[in-house]
Amino acid sequence: MDLSKLRANGARLRASLEEMATIGATPAGGVQRLTLSDEDRRARDLFVKWLKELDLSVSIDEMGSIFGRRKGRNDSLPPVMAGSHIDSQPKGGRFDGILGVMGALEVMRTLHENKVETERPLIIVDWTNEEGSRFAPAMVASGVWAGALERDWVYARADKDGKKQGEELARIGYKGTEPATKWPTHAYYEYHIEQGPMLERQKKTIGAPKGILCLHWYDVYLTGEANQVGPTPMEGRHDALVAAAECILAVNTLPDRMKGNMVATVGEIQNGPNSRNIIPDKAHFTVDIRSWDDDHAIAAWELLKKDFNTIAARRGTPIRIEETWRCPHAPFAERLVQRVLDTAKALGYSNLHMVSGAGHDASYMNQVCPTAMIFVPSIGGRSHVEVENTSWEDCEAGANVLLHCLLATANEK
Amino acid sequence: MDLSKLRANGARLRASLEEMATIGATPAGGVQRLTLSDEDRRARDLFVKWLKELDLSVSIDEMGSIFGRRKGRNDSLPPVMAGSHIDSQPKGGRFDGILGVMGALEVMRTLHENKVETERPLIIVDWTNEEGSRFAPAMVASGVWAGALERDWVYARADKDGKKQGEELARIGYKGTEPATKWPTHAYYEYHIEQGPMLERQKKTIGAPKGILCLHWYDVYLTGEANQVGPTPMEGRHDALVAAAECILAVNTLPDRMKGNMVATVGEIQNGPNSRNIIPDKAHFTVDIRSWDDDHAIAAWELLKKDFNTIAARRGTPIRIEETWRCPHAPFAERLVQRVLDTAKALGYSNLHMVSGAGHDASYMNQVCPTAMIFVPSIGGRSHVEVENTSWEDCEAGANVLLHCLLATANEK
Repeated sequence: MDLSKLRANGARLRASLEEMATIGATPAGGVQRLTLSDEDRRARDLFVKWLKELDLSVSIDEMGSIFGRRKGRNDSLPPVMAGSHIDSQPKGGRFDGILGVMGALEVMRTLHENKVETERPLIIVDWTNEEGSRFAPAMVASGVWAGALERDWVYARADKDGKKQGEELARIGYKGTEPATKWPTHAYYEYHIEQGPMLERQKKTIGAPKGILCLHWYDVYLTGEANQVGPTPMEGRHDALVAAAECILAVNTLPDRMKGNMVATVGEIQNGPNSRNIIPDKAHFTVDIRSWDDDHAIAAWELLKKDFNTIAARRGTPIRIEETWRCPHAPFAERLVQRVLDTAKALGYSNLHMVSGAGHDASYMNQVCPTAMIFVPSIGGRSHVEVENTSWEDCEAGANVLLHCLLATANEK
Repeated sequence: MDLSKLRANGARLRASLEEMATIGATPAGGVQRLTLSDEDRRARDLFVKWLKELDLSVSIDEMGSIFGRRKGRNDSLPPVMAGSHIDSQPKGGRFDGILGVMGALEVMRTLHENKVETERPLIIVDWTNEEGSRFAPAMVASGVWAGALERDWVYARADKDGKKQGEELARIGYKGTEPATKWPTHAYYEYHIEQGPMLERQKKTIGAPKGILCLHWYDVYLTGEANQVGPTPMEGRHDALVAAAECILAVNTLPDRMKGNMVATVGEIQNGPNSRNIIPDKAHFTVDIRSWDDDHAIAAWELLKKDFNTIAARRGTPIRIEETWRCPHAPFAERLVQRVLDTAKALGYSNLHMVSGAGHDASYMNQVCPTAMIFVPSIGGRSHVEVENTSWEDCEAGANVLLHCLLATANEK
């Protein structure tokens, strides 16, 4: 057959996504399928059943990641991999993660029913705990597999009820026996929703990120002086929340002051004692800075740190700053990124060379082998929320791009 | 005997305060004696035992308030009352409330051992749940007694574990049978720590507040748009926390913009979803405005409301404002306030005519009968915290002022 005519089955992809969306469905139309929950287990069971229907060789590693291997003509060559994650945010959407897994499954099904052989083996993967919202941090299974994180450290991470990740893996029956260790891999593709507004704004169907932004996390702690609000005059107050408010505005104006090319956000704040009639004496907030340019992000942080120290000194609210995590930007393999763009073009889809602001398992896979991602538009740019949405047409388009990228790459000798 | 020579026993007052401070003592030197807790019960039991040693007639009303009545020569005249509260803030101090109860007890002991008779009966009182930190709102027992609050509404108020105030009263054995209803009262004095820095700053021993500031509470809710922080550009964001931060600064500068004579505070904030990598879509914060001048406080609120609406409109974060509670300022009886000042002077204590920024049971008593308060300095102006402190000399001075105010007032025909 003329492989260039091969297409994914959009209706079948939609049906699989809709069936998955029933597992952990929320009343507001989203999905709550926290990693290693009973919902995660049910979704995994269904996924494994579907893999077995395609005669794939299924294996589960010590981190619970699920691999489905399809033989290549030359089966000893390093495989081409594709996948994403089944777990979701609390009150998350029906596309984040699962689209990349169901998209790769749809490719496998298309190849299976058309009896298409590839030179190299193909492996579909579901990575455990990409979200990191139940057990921090995120992307731990791909991190362990890539050799960037320690398995036992990850096992010991506990959720807010004190349950350990390793024990919960065993509880749901997905603590596998295969070592969670990378093998020689020819390439990795991850198909995902954009989670931002760029494709929609520019009316493009397919995005090919040149890589993932750097990601710097900070934790800031301010100490004030608690007091009954009524009898305490304004002058002489040391109000930790007022100082935090000033810092939050400094974070918000930072990208503009740095002339763009970055985003900066305070997502989380804790205030103490957080009582209506007591002056706050404790404020903790987080800072998230992302840029394609690591040095630019560091320079921005240096400016911000000066702001913070000035504010804290002026308000008499001693400050403690933790530089929590710095993940450098991850430039993908240019050859594969170009293949995504060329494939989209060949299939007649409009496309955009862009960046990924969100982290993905592709970050760690990028340390193992040449990696690229395929993005489709998020309606309204919304993600990590129940109204997260992507049109079925775009889902099908992305699957077609993934299909032909995988075919081309898996047929490389 | 020459009654003008009569003095409270400072050592005995200190011993009583120290014994009370062992009940609910915290490691950091404070007290946690939440209303209707087991600690509250133990402190009440001790208080009742001490009242009975003085042959006072003890009664408990339906709200759990404890009254100890000392006969007057003309026992049918309306009594003079004095007291405060035994309950504390979570991680509160060793003086807030209990000083006024132990101070009045020391007066009773001094009169008892010196066999001093007064024309009018004297009543010492411990009001249930002044703090309002376990069951909101505050000052409920004096409120019911004064006829300003409904008993059954107060009974039904639940703590954060869902336990109802009425049930907890019964559980600790202090749901009395006497109706919680005011009786004709000649005067009420409440002896209390200042909870602010004014006396210390001006190096004065005794404060006589001319009344209690008005107290206005508001609740503000902002709605933003949640999104993954990485892929969402700064422009077009609707960040509820950034809008809240701007509002918090507007509250903080409000007294200055209103040319003083007021305080304004944000004590509490909730942020949602409060996740490090999601743009906040929900922010709720409280506003507390206090002034001696009710109209001034309302004018300030009108200005602030304009600020809030402007900020919300500019940031695209719809706002909802609740005007939660407005308690007008309570001017005390001038005659009694002057008596506090004159008595301090006669006893050789420096003194200050001031205002009370904090609410007290005296607010509700002021609706029933002529009322005044006696303040002593709070070291560093600190209160509602474990380091709350007042010198033993000042405690004794306040008890002497209370003693002679009560003597003079209870001997009025």
